[in-house]
Amino acid sequence: MNDDREQTPDLETIRRASARIASYAHRTPVVTSAAVDAATGVAVFFKCENLQKVGAFKFRGAVNAVFSLGDEEAARGVATHSSGNHAQALALAARLRGIPARVVMPRTSAAPKKAAVAGYGAEIVECEPDLAARESTLDALLERTGAVAIHPYDDYRIIAGQATATVELLEDVPGLDAVLVPVGGGGLLSGTALAVHHLSPGTRVIAAEPAGADDAFRSLAAGRIIPSQSPRTIADGLLTSLGRRNFPIIQRHVERIVTVSETGIIHAMRMIWERTKLIVEPSAAVPLAALLECAVDLRGLRAGIILSGGNVDLDRLPW
Amino acid sequence: MNDDREQTPDLETIRRASARIASYAHRTPVVTSAAVDAATGVAVFFKCENLQKVGAFKFRGAVNAVFSLGDEEAARGVATHSSGNHAQALALAARLRGIPARVVMPRTSAAPKKAAVAGYGAEIVECEPDLAARESTLDALLERTGAVAIHPYDDYRIIAGQATATVELLEDVPGLDAVLVPVGGGGLLSGTALAVHHLSPGTRVIAAEPAGADDAFRSLAAGRIIPSQSPRTIADGLLTSLGRRNFPIIQRHVERIVTVSETGIIHAMRMIWERTKLIVEPSAAVPLAALLECAVDLRGLRAGIILSGGNVDLDRLPW
Repeated sequence: MNDDREQTPDLETIRRASARIASYAHRTPVVTSAAVDAATGVAVFFKCENLQKVGAFKFRGAVNAVFSLGDEEAARGVATHSSGNHAQALALAARLRGIPARVVMPRTSAAPKKAAVAGYGAEIVECEPDLAARESTLDALLERTGAVAIHPYDDYRIIAGQATATVELLEDVPGLDAVLVPVGGGGLLSGTALAVHHLSPGTRVIAAEPAGADDAFRSLAAGRIIPSQSPRTIADGLLTSLGRRNFPIIQRHVERIVTVSETGIIHAMRMIWERTKLIVEPSAAVPLAALLECAVDLRGLRAGIILSGGNVDLDRLPW
Repeated sequence: MNDDREQTPDLETIRRASARIASYAHRTPVVTSAAVDAATGVAVFFKCENLQKVGAFKFRGAVNAVFSLGDEEAARGVATHSSGNHAQALALAARLRGIPARVVMPRTSAAPKKAAVAGYGAEIVECEPDLAARESTLDALLERTGAVAIHPYDDYRIIAGQATATVELLEDVPGLDAVLVPVGGGGLLSGTALAVHHLSPGTRVIAAEPAGADDAFRSLAAGRIIPSQSPRTIADGLLTSLGRRNFPIIQRHVERIVTVSETGIIHAMRMIWERTKLIVEPSAAVPLAALLECAVDLRGLRAGIILSGGNVDLDRLPW
């Protein structure tokens, strides 16, 4: 039995994750912008996970999960189904440990996404483009290879890994009034909430979500996980439903979830590009959109925002 | 008489500049990319001056110049002719000191550029779009207002200010084999060369220049300043001729100047955007283009590259 895998991460578990990933992940910088502060009325501190390896915070969780495996277990390799940043993150983490990674991807996935995952040395297993096919293909794969499944967010090792971004943010910028993050499956949000709870309990944790994919907002209101159905948003990292391990943490430690418009996301994304010179993907711009649309009023306060990732197609920008 | 203004900066002068700008300028991060290293065969360390205030290293020199003025002199304000990053940098530096800034700009300058300079509180004085008109308009302005002219690069205070970026780079990444920078007027290059000479004399300083604006390359070969005539390059920060204070420093402390193609600049710029998630302007991509085009062979070595700026029009990208 492994504590790190079976229980909501406590402070010691999160500390262990920070130590575990230290030699593999970047300690990303925190960036500020006078123009952003003027536009929002908030002193904003951007934690640049778009500058993380594979271009997203997902690398933290993947490294923590992969390097917390015992040697025998690790030798069987890891597997997941994902077409996004988690797939690349798991592939690179596995390569760093020298073990196989297998990723189930819909055969309709964009060629550059497949190339990126394959480029990190993972084996791609194609399936039909629906959730049932992804899950059954993964199950068959696990059965056949004995690989360890690493879920993108519904996994305590992943949650502890994502928490480490906030550990660094709180170290670099003490006295934050709030931390804002986007919410999709809830891996980053639950990790952030735990790090804040343990290290800076006076800091508020607020999540932002596209109005067109507001299942987390509705779940928190309803007191139960409401699955994401037909989400429509440019923020393609935030389409998934909340995980069952993530939801109770969010219920307990997140002050609120606010929603933002699509035009607000694009406007915030462009402001980040122009004013901070950082490339962020639409999902990463969702918290700033919440400040700009006054979905939450933090004027006069100091807020950290985790810029979750920077993987965009430069030939298809939304402006 | 003020040493900082009249003499080639020595180590003490550069140290003084670092101290002077410390509370105004960002200490910018250094970023690495495994993909860039793989593509070049060089361990590349990007010093992110695109993340500097006003989005360019120019802010360092402007702050150093403005804050080294005596109170009486400063009260008369500062002035320059520029339509680029120096204008914004000088405007913000003057605002921080609470003194007037006046900027001579061609009446044909793009509206966003004028808006940016005016946004930092500078007074814009329009002139006809040729060098003679710019200079005569500035002279008349200086005569009328008693303002202190701050040249964009041909000024020892500016040179000492630009040197501070390399001071930080050498502190953060000891043991660099080379530092690569773009060259236009030579402000960044001469400052870089002096910082390296004083702090890490074993490190090579190499400049990169667009083949379509190769006046610095030709000047170094000829042993005299050859003015830039009809330059043609996307790297619009590198169009100017070398300054007379910059050239002897470059002659003495720069190993060589190499030239790169336009397609090489665009390719390198896109690689930086995609792989580091940093927005850089074409001028900033010129040194990486030199590595990618093997204009200089640093394979197996460690090289710092100063990403000089990030001011681009997101509606007019070159791909």
